[in-house]
Parts: sequence; C-alpha cells; structure tokens
Amino acid sequence: MVDGGRLWKRLSELAEIGKQEDGGVARLSFTKEERAAKDLVASYMQEAGLSVREDVAGNLFGRREGRDPNVPAVLIGSHVDSVLNGGDFDGPLGVLGGIEVLQTMNEEGVETERPVEVVAFTDEEGARFSLGMIGSRALTGTLSPEDLRHEDRDGVSIEQAMRDAGLDPGKIGDAVRSPDSLAAYLELHIEQGKVLEGENLPVGVVTGIAGPAWLRLSFTGEAGHAGTTPMGARRDALAAAAEVVGVVEEEASATGSTVGTVGQIEARPGGINIIPGGVELSLDLRDIDEAVRDGVEGRIRERAGEVCGRRGVALSFEELQRLPPAPCSEEIRASIAAACEKEGIKPHSLPSGAGHDGMHVAELCPMGMIFVRSKDGISHNPKEWSSREDCEAGCKILYLTVLDLAER
Amino acid sequence: MVDGGRLWKRLSELAEIGKQEDGGVARLSFTKEERAAKDLVASYMQEAGLSVREDVAGNLFGRREGRDPNVPAVLIGSHVDSVLNGGDFDGPLGVLGGIEVLQTMNEEGVETERPVEVVAFTDEEGARFSLGMIGSRALTGTLSPEDLRHEDRDGVSIEQAMRDAGLDPGKIGDAVRSPDSLAAYLELHIEQGKVLEGENLPVGVVTGIAGPAWLRLSFTGEAGHAGTTPMGARRDALAAAAEVVGVVEEEASATGSTVGTVGQIEARPGGINIIPGGVELSLDLRDIDEAVRDGVEGRIRERAGEVCGRRGVALSFEELQRLPPAPCSEEIRASIAAACEKEGIKPHSLPSGAGHDGMHVAELCPMGMIFVRSKDGISHNPKEWSSREDCEAGCKILYLTVLDLAER
Ligand SMILES: NC(=O)NCCC(=O)O
Ligand SMILES: NC(=O)NCCC(=O)O
Repeated sequence: MVDGGRLWKRLSELAEIGKQEDGGVARLSFTKEERAAKDLVASYMQEAGLSVREDVAGNLFGRREGRDPNVPAVLIGSHVDSVLNGGDFDGPLGVLGGIEVLQTMNEEGVETERPVEVVAFTDEEGARFSLGMIGSRALTGTLSPEDLRHEDRDGVSIEQAMRDAGLDPGKIGDAVRSPDSLAAYLELHIEQGKVLEGENLPVGVVTGIAGPAWLRLSFTGEAGHAGTTPMGARRDALAAAAEVVGVVEEEASATGSTVGTVGQIEARPGGINIIPGGVELSLDLRDIDEAVRDGVEGRIRERAGEVCGRRGVALSFEELQRLPPAPCSEEIRASIAAACEKEGIKPHSLPSGAGHDGMHVAELCPMGMIFVRSKDGISHNPKEWSSREDCEAGCKILYLTVLDLAER
Repeated sequence: MVDGGRLWKRLSELAEIGKQEDGGVARLSFTKEERAAKDLVASYMQEAGLSVREDVAGNLFGRREGRDPNVPAVLIGSHVDSVLNGGDFDGPLGVLGGIEVLQTMNEEGVETERPVEVVAFTDEEGARFSLGMIGSRALTGTLSPEDLRHEDRDGVSIEQAMRDAGLDPGKIGDAVRSPDSLAAYLELHIEQGKVLEGENLPVGVVTGIAGPAWLRLSFTGEAGHAGTTPMGARRDALAAAAEVVGVVEEEASATGSTVGTVGQIEARPGGINIIPGGVELSLDLRDIDEAVRDGVEGRIRERAGEVCGRRGVALSFEELQRLPPAPCSEEIRASIAAACEKEGIKPHSLPSGAGHDGMHVAELCPMGMIFVRSKDGISHNPKEWSSREDCEAGCKILYLTVLDLAER
C-alpha cells in the first residue's frame, strides 16, 4: 500500500522551497521558487519510474503506461505554486499524493488497463496575476490572448513572465489536450474548510466546486488637502470604497452561502495629508449556486452605485474572471465513496468553496475530488495544517479510486 | 513696487521642476527634484542681490542687511517641497514672493532698520516621511533623534535621506536659531480653502493654524482563504479597518470644525483570494480648537476599539505627531490688516486648516501669515490655482508688512 512516511517526507522537503520567515511559503508562478519546486517534483517522478515531460504552459507530467497505451488516460494531480504567504499542503498534497500512488503501483507491480498520468499544474492560485488555473486553462485551450495580458503588481504580464521563464506564449496552443486522451481527472486536496473536522472524518467526497467571480472596482473622487477641505466638501474615494467594503460583507453574509472578499486595496496618491482621489480594490465572490452569487453581485453593484452617487465618486467595474460552479462526476463520486467504504471511512459529501484546476479539466473529461481534513479550516496561511495520518488516508483513497477508474 | 510679472514667471519656472504628466508636481524632500528647486531658488536669491547660505537641515536662506546688522531680523518665507501629486503654488508663492519683496527693496533703494531674511524650508509637507516641517523643527531645535528615524515607503529614514543628500544629521543642532536673532516670522501662502473666494477677496489675514494629530492604526486579524472561510468565521482586518474609516468620517463631520482623513491604507498579504490578516492606515485629525480635535480622537479610539473587539481584530495606535494649534501674533495681524487697508482691500480674518512652518517658528518669535485666494479651495492637487493678480496682491501686502515690521 501507499507509503505515508515517504509522502510526508516529500511534503516536508517541498515546503523548504520558498519558505518564509514565519513558516509559510511563497512560490508565485514563473519564479525561481516555482521552478525549483517543479524540478524537485520531476526528480520524485523519476524516482517513481514515470516518464516525465513539461508542456509549453509549464505543466509538469509524469506518465505510467497501462496495458493499452492507446486508450484515454486517467489524470491525477494538483499544483505546486502557492499564494503570497501560503501553507505547505494546498497543492503539494495532490501532486505528491499522485506520485505516491504511481510509485506504489510500480513497486507492487500492479497493472492497469489505462495509462495514468500525474500533473503539477502551472499557477493554480492566481496569486501573482489575479487570474488562476493558468495551466489547466491552457490544457483546455481556453487561455485567451487577453488572459495572457493580465499583469502582476510590477506590471509584468503573464506573457512576459512566461518568456522570462523560457516558455513561448505564442505556442500556448500546443498545451491543449484532446478529450480523447483523457478518461477522468481526479484531485486529492486539503479541504481548506471545517466540515470534515466537524464530522470527525479524515477524508470526504467533493460534490462540486463553487464558481468564482473576480472583479476590480475603481473609485474616482477628488484628491484634496486633508487640513483645508471641510468634511462636507469632500469627494473622498477611500471613504466611498470603505462603505462598499461594508456592503460586500453585508450582502454576502445575508445569503448564508456566498462568500465575498476584498483582499486588495490601494489608495492614490497615498499621502497622509491628502484626501484619496482614487481607490482600486479587488472583489472575490463565490457560491456553489451561481444564481445566488450573481444575485449578491447585482445587489453590490446597485448599492455601490448608490454609495458613489451620493458621494460624487465615479465607480467602474472590471471583470477579471467569471466561472460557473463545476459539479463533480457522479461516477467518480461513487468510486471515491466505494474506496472510503473499503477503508472503513464513512463517505461524507461536501462542496468545495475554493477553486481547483478540475473546474477547467472538467471540460475535457469527468472530474472528481477527494478532500483531506484541514485543522481549524485554515488555509492560504502559514498555519494551514493536515495531519500525517489524514494525508496518508487521503492518499489511500486516491490509490483505490485510481485503481478503479483505470480499469474501466 | 513689486513686479508681479517677474513673480509669475518664476512661479512658472519653478513649476517645471518635478512636473508630472497630469500637470502637477512631485518634489519630495531630499530628492534631486527638491535639490534642483533649491538651486533655482538660490539663483533667484543671487539675482535679488541677497547673500545666500544653506544650513545643515537644508534650509536655504537669502539675507539682506538693514541699517543695524546686530538687531533681530525679520524672517519671511515658505517651502519648495511638494506632496506626491501637488500643485504649483503651495510653498513656492511664499518663497518667491519673499525674494520678490527683497529684490524690489534693493531695486528701489529702500532701507530698513532690521535685516530681512527669506527662507525656503526643508520638507514642510511631510509627504515623504509622514512627518512634516522638518526644516522649521530643526530651526527651533525640536527635531528629535526619534523624528529622524521616521521612514519613507521604501524604509529610508530621514537620517539616511539626509546623508544621501550630503547633509550630516549628526550636526542637526547647528541649524538651531536663537530667539535673539529673529524679530518676526511672516509667511505668504495660498489659502487652500474657499473662504476668500466666498468673500470675493484676493488676500486675507490668518488668525491661527489648526493643530494636526497624525496617527497610524494597525489592525491584526487573521488571514484566510477567500473561498472556504464562511463570512461568520472571519477575522477580516480590512472589513474592520473599513468600518473605522466610516467612524472617522462620522465623528469629524459631527463637530462641524474638525477634519479627519485616512490618506494611506495597506492590506496584507494583499492577494485577491486571501482575507486580509493585517491592515495599516494613517489618520490625520485637525482643528483650530485642540479640545474639539482631541474629543474626536477619543471617540474614534473608543468606537474603533468596539468595532475591533466585536470582530476579534487587534488594534494598536501609533502617534506620528501631535501639535497644538498655533495662534498668530496680534501685532503682525494688525500690521497685515493695515497693509490691506492701504491697498484698498478689506482685511478679512480667517484660520488656516493646513499646517505651516510658522507653527514651529512661533516658538522663536511672533508669527503671522497672509493668505492668497485659492480657486475652488483645491490644493494638494494638480488643479491648485491662484490667479496672477491675486499672487501679486499678496506679494504687495507682504512687501508693506515687511516694511512695517522691519522698521520697528
Ligand atoms: N484551492 C485553492 O486554494 N485554489 C486557489 C484559487 C482560489 O480558490 O482562489
Ligand atoms: N500648507 C500645507 O499644505 N502644509 C502641509 C502640511 C499639512 O498641513 O498637512
């Protein structure tokens, strides 16, 4: 069976790359940290006896042939990039867990009908360019030239960052996988929430992935002198933006299911004694129910318009991405549930609040996900934690599910 | 009499230094732009026949002797640094107006009893280090070693910036002026408000300067995943900070006199899909009545504490500066009023909402200010504007007041 000690050791080794002072990691896409992480992962793939290749989007694949090399493969994997100050499990668990599954199959001489591939996708997080799942978008051919123009904080576009990393954005089409080449996509990931902890279960079966709408709001008021402009004569862009931050919280909270987050804010010109004339902020809205999410968005737009109208501040919205929720395949859910039963774990179903590459790969083939219990539901934070035992349990479920899917 | 054309020409020439794309200027202290501005001003001082010197704080002086070189001098002036995206008049008018007064005296062979000096103070605005009036603080010996450790956005301290500009912060004590050397300080400045425009008057007599309290607020919540953390389980530092921005606006507005401004805000870690775990923001509070200002501050501290307590967010306050309001000298006010009468202008009294170097120089000698009408009250903004005629009128009043004060 899978070797939980080896999996845990590799998780710890990978966590050294991009390590931060406070214990978290920072591995933004197309940086030397992401490169080093992929190189380490490639070496594990080699140890596992896989044939390794990287596509033009930087997606790293390790393949194990089945009895029939010509039938569609089962794809498993996740990502190794992280957010700015992230944890050690978000992404790596699925990649290293996938390698562990294939290495175990090789060690135990297990044969499968279908080939099985493990992938480390490029930039799942979107932390650098406010556009995530770059690698899986490339796989489905939906990474548009417009997407490639998304810029990071320093004004470097995805296109430019690819070139700097030795990749050719002009050839991005070469990363596209035909639906004929894939039978199923399966991802092992930490839950990043508190459901499994509450249920006292090490793993769970994902029902579907909440759909994110990412927007940028730009407020334009009038800069002015902080000492001489009476309160009543101001068109303070930050005062307007602050009120809208409150509206986001209120409207999302009112639904009980939608989450709404302002993670980035910038006030210009940014002097202590200058009334802000301009503010930009980001808005991340998600729900497993698209209509509920879009309802929240509509009310935010309406109320933000009222706030700004009353304050003489202009407001514009830019859409960064908008994805529908992605339901998981019924067949794969049943296969995961059966694996849980076999391991004596009650198969508990739960949705994913976080986005995952499966949202895109689902355009090519049926998609499923296995969640591993997170401590306190904390993620995108150095304190992110899942126990060694739970990671091993998740990896076992992955092994059994792959075995099942690769025989069909 | 003073040459309004020459004054206007010099204002335009100075506005070319640090000019921004949108027409404003950026001349932060100890930068090459501030240096270039001082060099240009020094050349005007030379043209005006003054003896020029710069002190260890970078304050630039031009001196014209009186009949008696040993009596205390009348000091006039202002500053040539600007905020990040400032206008062309805030500061330059007082420096160039002062030079114009002394050049006119030389050209007309006017003698005065007292020497008259014109000064361009270093960093009045505080835009770079969130601590302003650096030059005038140095003059009074109140620029502490702690003050010198204030840092700019890039972590460069005042101390370091001085060294980089070839100034020796260890000798800052050499900039101190003895009260015996100064008889009066007089500054010509744009109003930066709408009072004179409302009164349809080109100039006005300042009664006193509002006292600023500058604070930095640090909010510490918990970073988390934007997709997986339910609204009710968040300790969002930005949601707390946004509520406090609203409290500042409310409490300041309620007084009718205090102004309260949040000009800077930063959210960490700053990812689009990460709940902000930390926020820092600046707070600028001012009133001509210290007790009213401090009352507002107290209520903001209390209500911000409640907001953060309710949200599980920690809050700390750091005081960046706290100055009492500075009343202008009755004698100088009377002298300015008399000059206005002589020019056929109704002497209108008004307070200054903005801070000025006179707040500090007042510790050494009686202080007074002349305001020139601003268009729409706009300042710290590229649209800042005073007409050529109003600038000339202000300079005439300055001339007559200096003539009076320098004879006493
Ligand atoms: N699983 C995960 O953290 N994905 C990052 C993209 C997002 O959900 O914001
Ligand atoms: N007059 C003026 O704009 N001073 C700058 C310092 C301040 O008032 O904030």
